[in-house]
Amino acid sequence: MQTSVSRALRSTVCRRVGVATLTKATRRTLSLSTFARSSPRTGAVAVQSARRQYATTVPDPSTLPGLDASKLKVTPNPDLKTPPPSDQLTFGTTFTDHMLTIPWNSATGWGEPHIKPFGDIPMHPGSMGIHYAISAFEGMKAYRDASGRVTLFRPDKNMARLNRSVARITMPTFDGAEMITLIKELVKLDAHWIPTEPGHSLYVRPIMLGTQPTLYVGPTNEALLYVICSPVGPYYKTAIKPVALLGTDMYTRAAPGGTGGYKVAANYAPAIVPQLEAEAAGYDQNLWLLGPEHVLTEVGSMNLFLVLKTKDGKTELVTPDLADIILPGVTRDSILALARAHASGEAKIAGLPADLVVSERKITMAEVKEAAAEGRLLEVFGAGTAAVVSPVGRIGWEGKDIVVDCGKEGAGPVTRTMLREIEGRQYGRIPSEWAVVVQEGTE
Amino acid sequence: MQTSVSRALRSTVCRRVGVATLTKATRRTLSLSTFARSSPRTGAVAVQSARRQYATTVPDPSTLPGLDASKLKVTPNPDLKTPPPSDQLTFGTTFTDHMLTIPWNSATGWGEPHIKPFGDIPMHPGSMGIHYAISAFEGMKAYRDASGRVTLFRPDKNMARLNRSVARITMPTFDGAEMITLIKELVKLDAHWIPTEPGHSLYVRPIMLGTQPTLYVGPTNEALLYVICSPVGPYYKTAIKPVALLGTDMYTRAAPGGTGGYKVAANYAPAIVPQLEAEAAGYDQNLWLLGPEHVLTEVGSMNLFLVLKTKDGKTELVTPDLADIILPGVTRDSILALARAHASGEAKIAGLPADLVVSERKITMAEVKEAAAEGRLLEVFGAGTAAVVSPVGRIGWEGKDIVVDCGKEGAGPVTRTMLREIEGRQYGRIPSEWAVVVQEGTE
Repeated sequence: MQTSVSRALRSTVCRRVGVATLTKATRRTLSLSTFARSSPRTGAVAVQSARRQYATTVPDPSTLPGLDASKLKVTPNPDLKTPPPSDQLTFGTTFTDHMLTIPWNSATGWGEPHIKPFGDIPMHPGSMGIHYAISAFEGMKAYRDASGRVTLFRPDKNMARLNRSVARITMPTFDGAEMITLIKELVKLDAHWIPTEPGHSLYVRPIMLGTQPTLYVGPTNEALLYVICSPVGPYYKTAIKPVALLGTDMYTRAAPGGTGGYKVAANYAPAIVPQLEAEAAGYDQNLWLLGPEHVLTEVGSMNLFLVLKTKDGKTELVTPDLADIILPGVTRDSILALARAHASGEAKIAGLPADLVVSERKITMAEVKEAAAEGRLLEVFGAGTAAVVSPVGRIGWEGKDIVVDCGKEGAGPVTRTMLREIEGRQYGRIPSEWAVVVQEGTE
Repeated sequence: MQTSVSRALRSTVCRRVGVATLTKATRRTLSLSTFARSSPRTGAVAVQSARRQYATTVPDPSTLPGLDASKLKVTPNPDLKTPPPSDQLTFGTTFTDHMLTIPWNSATGWGEPHIKPFGDIPMHPGSMGIHYAISAFEGMKAYRDASGRVTLFRPDKNMARLNRSVARITMPTFDGAEMITLIKELVKLDAHWIPTEPGHSLYVRPIMLGTQPTLYVGPTNEALLYVICSPVGPYYKTAIKPVALLGTDMYTRAAPGGTGGYKVAANYAPAIVPQLEAEAAGYDQNLWLLGPEHVLTEVGSMNLFLVLKTKDGKTELVTPDLADIILPGVTRDSILALARAHASGEAKIAGLPADLVVSERKITMAEVKEAAAEGRLLEVFGAGTAAVVSPVGRIGWEGKDIVVDCGKEGAGPVTRTMLREIEGRQYGRIPSEWAVVVQEGTE
């Protein structure tokens, strides 16, 4: 493999093509085809000539510098801002004093990480990331616990997912552990921006953008990985309020063979009109349904969970299986891990039913309707970094509402237990190896 | 309608929701929901408060300034470059001396159009367009004919499509005629960049990007519409060469309810890995198939046409119907218009069969296979701004190739005729109202 296309991409390509069936000649073709990265060109005919032209000039990526946190350069912001009062925070509009940037180039590999004053990025107007959505990102949070300790929640999961996402759209992968080291440095420098009020946090947004200045559609040979931070308030300002979902089959968030299972920019813009329509119809978010069977997939910006009483009387926690169309959420994974530990008896959790069964499986609107009609739809909730765990009170479907009883506490017992268990680990109330320390507390 | 959400979006929303069934209350909700544009906020609960918060502060968009070419400000580039020799052009990598920018803001409407030196755009690192693919564009060309006259080809179609695209992802629409006036000014200023060699042109790329600096996912309240230009060579450097397509069903370019029918950034990044895989398997481009029936949709970056001998002996020119999943190409529309004029007898075209039938309809791989087996698959070609008209020589499907005989001229008679007719109108060899004059020739 002589090109700079990431190993992740290569393995994706091999898996899809069926690596066992690749002849030596095909492998060679595969290798050559990926010279695309270094060669903006037009159309099929030009591809051929580009392959020939660049075949001997692209460096072997295994010899190129990887992402290296020890090369970090820090330029402190001489003009520090004052963080606004926490009660005036609006999601994603206030940014801290610094940002982290790391350039990548197919000829020279990963460049020098730089923490520098937050500010505009000079962008070539022909940057392919802007024109063709060659952009992937993560959403994570830094939390301050009661002792003043600052932690990240399972950042390794975010780095693994970002690597998966960028490879899906032919951008370079990177060493996740090195990146976490760099993110910690950024968060430490701007730690005074983390609100101290309960439920508040610092939203951390890593993003990678294809920056090669070409209008050709193909793998980029330049990219910028950067991280910005924004202090945010709790999702629920006061009490928990159940959300209303609109079963949505007129729009598709993600189809099989698309990018629904990856956190890429391309998944988001197409979903805004459906969101506005759901609001117009009196709902809070879309419940994305797939195909003629109306298979449940995701909710707006969250993964979906349902609690059912099964026909044989057990309590089943169901979430749709990923099937390469659903975003593999970190909160989703954490809920599944906790629930499975409880169900197996490995770590019992107070508040969860003794007979809990945990399923990742296909579930259709017909099944949800039937369960509701038979009084077996106990709870529905969404899970994500922003909303943590968010109860669902009704689902609009076929012109009616399927109502889920959330009780006087606004959420059923499984939902409340999961919210407590996840937030407990995020804010240090429950000791957990999922909490990765950025900075020790002062108490 | 008190908000700045475009009428196109509103009509989309109304159409989808079913405007006839909207009660007055629902209409009010719809109107309020679109305040999203002015209000970055998080989640469903915040949406409610944002609605209340902004309900009285957003200006009525009908009173805001529209795009106005008479406000154009021109700052000439003091440092003009020398265009490279035409034989060294690579698609989309060389840019001219100037660019056109027009800012938009939900509070102040369309701002001052500015033609200025080509250069970097200062980009806020939290610009939502970058994070969420709120970006849509056009591909058009300026041609220089033998007399030196400079024209655009059906620019009204590109402007109409861009308006459709931006509305689909909740960006503001604009007056297409004003925009064409501005594009003409830009092309005139950089007209010496249009190569004079046959088959060369100036590729013109209008793009609109959501620039509001927020990590909230919703309609943007700031956008930048800009235009850059790049001199390009012909798609085929020498003789016409048939391309090979790989029937692709493991990936989905666009699903019903997605954005396949709109020229938005989000359609492109997800298609690069499939393109690399097609190349790895020895093909030039993907033939995107949809669903279990393997319905033909598009080819890589082109629309698809087939010429079939029908079972009753007629000649049928088939292209898949748009079905809101296929990009409505300007070249596609032009070919259909010419073919229909010929078929109806309105304007006979030499080289097309006398018994031509023109169809926009669903066509499956099973039908293509059957037609090929029975000797009735006469021609296949792609059509687009870049490739113009591009013959297809084989289609990989189910591990075999469906071969299309392109003859010794590299393309069948319908393909060659359409290439001649389209290029003839683009380069002024055939007089046509589709050619819109930017600058008269000197002869």
